[in-house]
Amino acid sequence: MIILSYFEPETGAWQQISYEQLPAQLPADAKLWINLNDATAEEQLQVLRRFAIVPTLAEDFSRQRHPPKLESQTDFTLLIMRGYADADFSEYTGSAQVNLLYSKKVLISRVHCHNPQLLAQLTPQINGNSQITVADWIKQLILSVSASYLEKLISFEDEQSELEDAMLHRGNDEQMALIMRYRSVLRKINRNLAYQKDIFSDAMYEEQSPLLRHFSSTELRDFYEKFERLHSMTDLYYDQLSDLVEGYLSTTSHQINERMKVLTIVSTIFIPLTFIAGIYGMNFIYMPELQMPNGYFTVLIAMALGGVAGLIWFKIRGWW
Amino acid sequence: MIILSYFEPETGAWQQISYEQLPAQLPADAKLWINLNDATAEEQLQVLRRFAIVPTLAEDFSRQRHPPKLESQTDFTLLIMRGYADADFSEYTGSAQVNLLYSKKVLISRVHCHNPQLLAQLTPQINGNSQITVADWIKQLILSVSASYLEKLISFEDEQSELEDAMLHRGNDEQMALIMRYRSVLRKINRNLAYQKDIFSDAMYEEQSPLLRHFSSTELRDFYEKFERLHSMTDLYYDQLSDLVEGYLSTTSHQINERMKVLTIVSTIFIPLTFIAGIYGMNFIYMPELQMPNGYFTVLIAMALGGVAGLIWFKIRGWW
Amino acid sequence: MIILSYFEPETGAWQQISYEQLPAQLPADAKLWINLNDATAEEQLQVLRRFAIVPTLAEDFSRQRHPPKLESQTDFTLLIMRGYADADFSEYTGSAQVNLLYSKKVLISRVHCHNPQLLAQLTPQINGNSQITVADWIKQLILSVSASYLEKLISFEDEQSELEDAMLHRGNDEQMALIMRYRSVLRKINRNLAYQKDIFSDAMYEEQSPLLRHFSSTELRDFYEKFERLHSMTDLYYDQLSDLVEGYLSTTSHQINERMKVLTIVSTIFIPLTFIAGIYGMNFIYMPELQMPNGYFTVLIAMALGGVAGLIWFKIRGWW
Amino acid sequence: MIILSYFEPETGAWQQISYEQLPAQLPADAKLWINLNDATAEEQLQVLRRFAIVPTLAEDFSRQRHPPKLESQTDFTLLIMRGYADADFSEYTGSAQVNLLYSKKVLISRVHCHNPQLLAQLTPQINGNSQITVADWIKQLILSVSASYLEKLISFEDEQSELEDAMLHRGNDEQMALIMRYRSVLRKINRNLAYQKDIFSDAMYEEQSPLLRHFSSTELRDFYEKFERLHSMTDLYYDQLSDLVEGYLSTTSHQINERMKVLTIVSTIFIPLTFIAGIYGMNFIYMPELQMPNGYFTVLIAMALGGVAGLIWFKIRGWW
Amino acid sequence: MIILSYFEPETGAWQQISYEQLPAQLPADAKLWINLNDATAEEQLQVLRRFAIVPTLAEDFSRQRHPPKLESQTDFTLLIMRGYADADFSEYTGSAQVNLLYSKKVLISRVHCHNPQLLAQLTPQINGNSQITVADWIKQLILSVSASYLEKLISFEDEQSELEDAMLHRGNDEQMALIMRYRSVLRKINRNLAYQKDIFSDAMYEEQSPLLRHFSSTELRDFYEKFERLHSMTDLYYDQLSDLVEGYLSTTSHQINERMKVLTIVSTIFIPLTFIAGIYGMNFIYMPELQMPNGYFTVLIAMALGGVAGLIWFKIRGWW
Repeated sequence: MIILSYFEPETGAWQQISYEQLPAQLPADAKLWINLNDATAEEQLQVLRRFAIVPTLAEDFSRQRHPPKLESQTDFTLLIMRGYADADFSEYTGSAQVNLLYSKKVLISRVHCHNPQLLAQLTPQINGNSQITVADWIKQLILSVSASYLEKLISFEDEQSELEDAMLHRGNDEQMALIMRYRSVLRKINRNLAYQKDIFSDAMYEEQSPLLRHFSSTELRDFYEKFERLHSMTDLYYDQLSDLVEGYLSTTSHQINERMKVLTIVSTIFIPLTFIAGIYGMNFIYMPELQMPNGYFTVLIAMALGGVAGLIWFKIRGWW
Repeated sequence: MIILSYFEPETGAWQQISYEQLPAQLPADAKLWINLNDATAEEQLQVLRRFAIVPTLAEDFSRQRHPPKLESQTDFTLLIMRGYADADFSEYTGSAQVNLLYSKKVLISRVHCHNPQLLAQLTPQINGNSQITVADWIKQLILSVSASYLEKLISFEDEQSELEDAMLHRGNDEQMALIMRYRSVLRKINRNLAYQKDIFSDAMYEEQSPLLRHFSSTELRDFYEKFERLHSMTDLYYDQLSDLVEGYLSTTSHQINERMKVLTIVSTIFIPLTFIAGIYGMNFIYMPELQMPNGYFTVLIAMALGGVAGLIWFKIRGWW
Repeated sequence: MIILSYFEPETGAWQQISYEQLPAQLPADAKLWINLNDATAEEQLQVLRRFAIVPTLAEDFSRQRHPPKLESQTDFTLLIMRGYADADFSEYTGSAQVNLLYSKKVLISRVHCHNPQLLAQLTPQINGNSQITVADWIKQLILSVSASYLEKLISFEDEQSELEDAMLHRGNDEQMALIMRYRSVLRKINRNLAYQKDIFSDAMYEEQSPLLRHFSSTELRDFYEKFERLHSMTDLYYDQLSDLVEGYLSTTSHQINERMKVLTIVSTIFIPLTFIAGIYGMNFIYMPELQMPNGYFTVLIAMALGGVAGLIWFKIRGWW
Repeated sequence: MIILSYFEPETGAWQQISYEQLPAQLPADAKLWINLNDATAEEQLQVLRRFAIVPTLAEDFSRQRHPPKLESQTDFTLLIMRGYADADFSEYTGSAQVNLLYSKKVLISRVHCHNPQLLAQLTPQINGNSQITVADWIKQLILSVSASYLEKLISFEDEQSELEDAMLHRGNDEQMALIMRYRSVLRKINRNLAYQKDIFSDAMYEEQSPLLRHFSSTELRDFYEKFERLHSMTDLYYDQLSDLVEGYLSTTSHQINERMKVLTIVSTIFIPLTFIAGIYGMNFIYMPELQMPNGYFTVLIAMALGGVAGLIWFKIRGWW
Repeated sequence: MIILSYFEPETGAWQQISYEQLPAQLPADAKLWINLNDATAEEQLQVLRRFAIVPTLAEDFSRQRHPPKLESQTDFTLLIMRGYADADFSEYTGSAQVNLLYSKKVLISRVHCHNPQLLAQLTPQINGNSQITVADWIKQLILSVSASYLEKLISFEDEQSELEDAMLHRGNDEQMALIMRYRSVLRKINRNLAYQKDIFSDAMYEEQSPLLRHFSSTELRDFYEKFERLHSMTDLYYDQLSDLVEGYLSTTSHQINERMKVLTIVSTIFIPLTFIAGIYGMNFIYMPELQMPNGYFTVLIAMALGGVAGLIWFKIRGWW
């Protein structure tokens, strides 16, 4: 299903029209938003042909999964972005894919997003205001994409602080598994943000960037800084989680060492002593020591001396 | 055996001809594909001399193993690419080596590939269409090479997700060995893709790139983006596998720690107690405690107190 | 509450005035500092509108948390910096946020800092000297920010040396936890310093940097070197802490190995011997060995031989 | 001993002449190779003075150990290279040092190499062919140096594959030590190759490179690609060995965990049971349980229940 | 105390003069070295004011600890270098700080160095030769600084080889602690060398470098290469030590695994057997098995079978 929102300059009002009602030639001040979210492949093809989109752009636009990119051919610019659609960073069921094709007058959009709330935010606002331009729509979409990460990153900061405290005091397998999931998600997000950051950083330094047709360099710098900040935050969080894993490994290792120490000292002292007790517990008919009146005390004293010798040996070796 | 496919502009038809039938001077619109896959070294030499290929190009073209490169001398351009010939990333029995020498009219190809299906895809399509140019062949070969990676990378994503789940819950030696094999293969692929990505990224920024003779900058950008995306995907997967190994190490360490804790507590409490029991199991004729009517109960109570003291000590030390 | 410090060129004196007393047009030699530290959102908005600050600058200026940045629009330059507000690197309760908007005549400042001592240092000095310019204020604030890190970094060096010695000799969980906290804080500081270093390094190489309106290139180089040195120091300390963690892990691992060796040797020799003693401690009515006159000594000798054989076996295997 | 090979243009023949026979002024087409491999320090000094080599070049040329470099002063160019002189990568007894000083007509060489076979390959071929130039000699030496690495790297690939298989199945200390030696050698080689790669990559991009006096840019590109490929191969192998070490660590850790599990389960179940058996093995005169007719069976059943309870507890904790 | 060495062009001789004897205007060919090593803060200030050193240079010059830098203002150039003052890399009690301010005619130096031998080398040679210029002094000081690292790095190479052998065969805690100290020192040195390398690499590429006033580009290249080589050597040694730590960790882990294997096999087989022996050592009055004539042999056989079964189980599980 193709949904068309058309601003007719004559009447100065927005209309929902059907694809067939679309005038062959758009008036100079017309604005048109074609929403292909629920369009079939044929409908999409029809629209892309109608506006003479070149094949390479059309192909990338049609993809459900494509990393963020920016490319311009003739009048139309293709902008692919990816938002973060899940509730938090412990799961990643796929990004929100925002595929946009736009010119001065027309915006063709196709958004794939399993989170209805984010999907609503990724919709151009066409209510009432007749002054709004296609560039304003694009700007709002870019800001919505960046906001979809920012909210989660800010709430993640607290979560991570708690995790840090927890790991240092009493880490367990589940927390380690959670950290692993976070790291995996942060890696994927980081890659998406790097692509998006590069789109705007390239635009800032290229004289001929297609983004400069619609946005001032101040706006581009603002977009860039937003994504750069997000990227730098994911970097930081990822690295902090890595530090946490490494620190946990060291702490665990230290604890194993401590336990090993206790176990070894106790075992090394008592296992030989138990062996000696075992010897005199044997039932041989002729065991001369057993008949000695002081045998028992002699053995007890010998055992005590052995135990003390063991403790001294461990002390000398610096085991505690 | 040299296989020649010749498009005669006069008849407008493709012919299989023998090397001897090749006209001394190719007509302006002629197109020729020389397939050296099964050629002997002499036959190959003969062909390379026939087209006056300069020695450095000829030497690199003749190699069965050479990293991807692009070089141009006089009319002919040498393009060496590497495709992924194995079924998945758990094995790597060598890449498909695609050695191409081409000019406007002639394509000399030599493809080494142990996978017949991929070999078929790495063959120029010459069926019928008389409009097709040598550049179209090259383009199709480049896309086939990139596709040979993409398929496996996409199917690998699911595999890796499963592996991730498995490792976090019940990792074993075989999975670890599989991860190691994957990492080893991804490293090698990553290197090949980096070379191929660089070929096209250089071409995009060099004014005089030999690729610009045959391809538009839009096509080059498309090639570049395909390989850049593959490269970035292998990077991501490699890094995620590394994270997995590191996380597994931490988890294992944690489990060792837990087991150590149980072992140490049990051993530290029961080994000394067993020693005491062993003492009163000795058969010395004179052991006064044994004669005491309450000796047994006294010892039992002392043992119980010792055990409880041990537990309290561990509790105080925060062992659980 | 808006606090205004106004230098009236006519009287040549500083005055605390209220916002309403502010002349509509500032005289050429006037100087004005508007302190918004305790201003409400409306008061702040009022001031920013009064000086026609463009929305993007105004928005960033109003943020309580924004990474360091420099941006200039029309007359006003926005400079955001972050100082280190905590007592040392074992805690990080948030940076001191220094948001500045300044022109030739006016400085609008908003500083968030929970450390009153640092807050006092982050206040422009307006006492008496009528020659002082807005640029002098900015310079002094930049130096105060850099000093807020330097003091702690220098005192940290000694602390880290001690930590290094302690870890190599008798590391424990608390020291490891402290190291983890230090690393976490150093990472965050490092990021803030990187942003601040980049502000001045960009300024040194850009012809049109807004900083060049107020500072000479020598001053900029000095600012840059200060932050570069701080950044390089945090890098160094972070890396040294990482080395420490790694070295501690190795040392711990070595100690576990040593303990394991002792435990295994003792257990492997005495557990089988104890088993043999246990056998002859059984109370079966018919155990022929028990009746043999030399049984006891035979068994003792066999045990001794077994123990010696075990020691020899470990010696051959190179266990000590 | 100075060995001079002189090509006299008049006779068109190569001659071994003594240093004293050297004409004061070399004819235009003359070619001269001065081999200083076995020269004393004075002889060397004599030659360097004779050709007015500037002091900085002379000093670097005289060094037995100097990283690869290229420098040109007046007519003479200094080229220092390092070849790989050992049989394989498990040992590194020092590189072959190739110090060259050359102009259009003269090559002064000093090669230090403990491997006679490589030393022979690092000797200019002067047999017969009168057309050969000094540049041809240099080219051949560069190719010999690159070949000295390539052979060993190619044979190393198989060795490493075997090592990889071995480590994953049954790694031992000796293999780990071998891997450590390989890594150490690959690091050193990598550094030498980086220097040599940079020499040629600089030459490709500098307009005024002294190498361009004697070589075409195609030749330089070929040299560069050879060393770049070697460098990239050592990088790859080094990284793969690192992955191997890391994977081995994980596998080992997993095995320790498995063993720990078995040990802990067995010990935790049987040590308390043995303690109970020990109690009833004591010889106190009054132990009421011993007199109970069903005492033995009651205890046996209690022990069985205790053992089963332990197993269930471990099962619930997910230990197997 | 200010020590002045003055070369009077008229007499052509060097003189030790007092600060007061210094002529107000230095003649054209005069040369002056002002040694402030033992000067008080006031004396130093006096000298810096006398030559009108700008405040930023004066401040950096006065610091006892400042990373290497180069800056020029008006006639005077500030060059700060750091030499290595300790005997070897197992300790680092602070670098030798070399602060220089020089113009064509004057060198003001302040060297902090606790090693008297190095301090002597860091003193300009003014004996006799009247041709020597200030630039020659600077050059000699730069070479002395680079030599202070080189000697120790070369002797360190052998030490490290020995350490490598030792660690692979029988590493212990002290060696690990030594490695940790080496790494810590190499990191600090590496940072100092990086600063010094950058000073000369910047000078090579900047048209206006203050170093070019006094040195030829050949000399600068030589300085650069010396520090680059030192830097690359410390990098290499640091990385090799890191590899060593990592390899040691793997080797240790492998040994723990081996010990664990032995311990687990022995314990798992003998602990249950000892338990069985313990049961039949109990003194219950009614234990039917004890009365069976073949009871003893049945139990012995059962124990043997149990032991063999355990061994087979471990064999099947691939434990040896």
